[in-house]
Amino acid sequence: MLERFKVPEKDRVYVREEEVRPATEDIFRAMGLSDENAVLSADVLMTNDLRGVETHGVSNMLRSYVQRYRDGKMNPTPEIKIERETDTTAVLDGDGGLGLHVGPYAMNIAIEKAAEFGLGAVCVHNVGHMGGAGYHAMLALEHDMIGVSMTTSGSLSMLPTFGAEPRFGTNPIAYAAPADKMPPFVFDIGTTQIAGNKVRLIKRVGAEILPAWLASTDGSPIMEEGPLPDDYYMLPMGGTREQGSHKGYGFGAVIDILGSTLTGIGPGFIALTPGFHLMAYNIDAFTDSGKFKSDMDEFLQALADTPPAPGHERVVYAGLLEAEEVELRRSEGIPYHREVIDWFTTIESELGLDFSFIA
Amino acid sequence: MLERFKVPEKDRVYVREEEVRPATEDIFRAMGLSDENAVLSADVLMTNDLRGVETHGVSNMLRSYVQRYRDGKMNPTPEIKIERETDTTAVLDGDGGLGLHVGPYAMNIAIEKAAEFGLGAVCVHNVGHMGGAGYHAMLALEHDMIGVSMTTSGSLSMLPTFGAEPRFGTNPIAYAAPADKMPPFVFDIGTTQIAGNKVRLIKRVGAEILPAWLASTDGSPIMEEGPLPDDYYMLPMGGTREQGSHKGYGFGAVIDILGSTLTGIGPGFIALTPGFHLMAYNIDAFTDSGKFKSDMDEFLQALADTPPAPGHERVVYAGLLEAEEVELRRSEGIPYHREVIDWFTTIESELGLDFSFIA
Repeated sequence: MLERFKVPEKDRVYVREEEVRPATEDIFRAMGLSDENAVLSADVLMTNDLRGVETHGVSNMLRSYVQRYRDGKMNPTPEIKIERETDTTAVLDGDGGLGLHVGPYAMNIAIEKAAEFGLGAVCVHNVGHMGGAGYHAMLALEHDMIGVSMTTSGSLSMLPTFGAEPRFGTNPIAYAAPADKMPPFVFDIGTTQIAGNKVRLIKRVGAEILPAWLASTDGSPIMEEGPLPDDYYMLPMGGTREQGSHKGYGFGAVIDILGSTLTGIGPGFIALTPGFHLMAYNIDAFTDSGKFKSDMDEFLQALADTPPAPGHERVVYAGLLEAEEVELRRSEGIPYHREVIDWFTTIESELGLDFSFIA
Repeated sequence: MLERFKVPEKDRVYVREEEVRPATEDIFRAMGLSDENAVLSADVLMTNDLRGVETHGVSNMLRSYVQRYRDGKMNPTPEIKIERETDTTAVLDGDGGLGLHVGPYAMNIAIEKAAEFGLGAVCVHNVGHMGGAGYHAMLALEHDMIGVSMTTSGSLSMLPTFGAEPRFGTNPIAYAAPADKMPPFVFDIGTTQIAGNKVRLIKRVGAEILPAWLASTDGSPIMEEGPLPDDYYMLPMGGTREQGSHKGYGFGAVIDILGSTLTGIGPGFIALTPGFHLMAYNIDAFTDSGKFKSDMDEFLQALADTPPAPGHERVVYAGLLEAEEVELRRSEGIPYHREVIDWFTTIESELGLDFSFIA
């Protein structure tokens, strides 16, 4: 993550994972989730927080989930239905449940199918926020599988290249591939130029936007560095056409097709309801998974050993910094903005809960 | 395609597809390919030329294929072997054949598996150049399937973000999804900031490079517009870290993993031999394909109807301009650089062939 997104040191409160996790589980239970789904949903947020993906940890997301449950916009006890199924595929109606636990449910079906037939792909509609694509793709890792995860959005923010009206959400995509000794490859991105939740972080930490990160509401890319404007649209990955925004726009469309249109709910962004696409590749269906994982060790080590360009200390690969951050945060605690701790204090009192890290 | 890549008007020679196609087939036959594979290989190049994808048409590629056959570096009569196979997957040894015909062979296996089981994915190693990823993904369309195609490279050009030594090729990826009445969605990109063959086009048409398109050989992005330097590396899609080059780098790694490492030949770029990953999704395994295609019509029409930003005439989607170009080039002919025609004249004489469009 770029330095500008980090919580400023003066505002940081370090809390240990073991304290935030049960509090987060308690909040989900108080919203009406089953114990199993509360534990699972908290695990998604805590995994993101430990990995340093604070865009999708408790800071940015938990509050909005609580709000949606309270507003009756999300179903705490969904009955997931299989609408169509083949040996390798399924389409699920998520019954309005939160993606944090509906996603793993769907991914596990994909993994079971891949275990039997080599590949598995499951689409979900009528489902709430996924809570970051990476977690769901990573579920494949312990099964010696490659996981893929993507989600469309219930709101439109991304302009197509040359467009003046948004057509997609930030439509994220993640791939996870296992290694043996090295931290796994976990690639998890939004197909907009910057992730949607990064904009919230920019607001919270008072950072500035860089050229070609966002567009004015007439569709023109904002080409000066400066403060976050009140009104803006997201640009596709690449920013401008000259810098390849048609590629980000195209990936956004791919995810709209695979995540939404393929579920049968209607044409992608026009149907305007989040849809998931989750996939698992059984590595042993292609090659020996033991050899694959030791090849991945060599592959990832060689990437990390790439000599750096002037002005840079090292080269990393997707998932490496996140694995290092887990080590660090397990020992030092997770740095939250003090304003997040204030929210926990308020919600603790509102819900009549008792959090160990709140005085 | 950006204007700077087009053949300058003064250098254009228009030739009808019906004339170039048999000449191209003749050249492949003269290289020793079977009639079927010569026709198929020419179809890949002609489809690219008709669609305006001149980076992968006869201009850029045919000469180098001829050279590789003449140098004994490619096998004109490969015996493709299946190394591992499951219901939904296969890994093929391409026996050193050209990807233009080995790719469709592999894609058709993926399509057959998807027809029976819902999904199919086939990897190929020991294979020559794919000739553009789009063609192979598009083979799924007429089967009411979504096609995916990716290939790694036999040479290293792309720097990882912050790196000073190249680790990947241009590692392209394509997705094709059918519609009913609208031209299909065909998204086909390199994961470098600009496609490898675009650099050859820049040379041929004497264009300049834009900032953050390429890097100096020490790994620093070249941030000024100017002429193509003699030595350079490719930057990942995004260009600089601030503009998201870690996303292009990550996609490059995904394609190295799925296209090479997953075939069992060794760790991606370290094994340094091109590998393909071809996949088909049977739409009916997810939802009714008739509804899907009419939903796609609505989806694609809505993208094309997006109001444009100031300074732009229209919004397009991946595959639309290419479909329009096919109409235009079928009626007007394909605009080749006169230097390409000179090459056809030379090769006609060298191989003792007789091309209708050469005086």
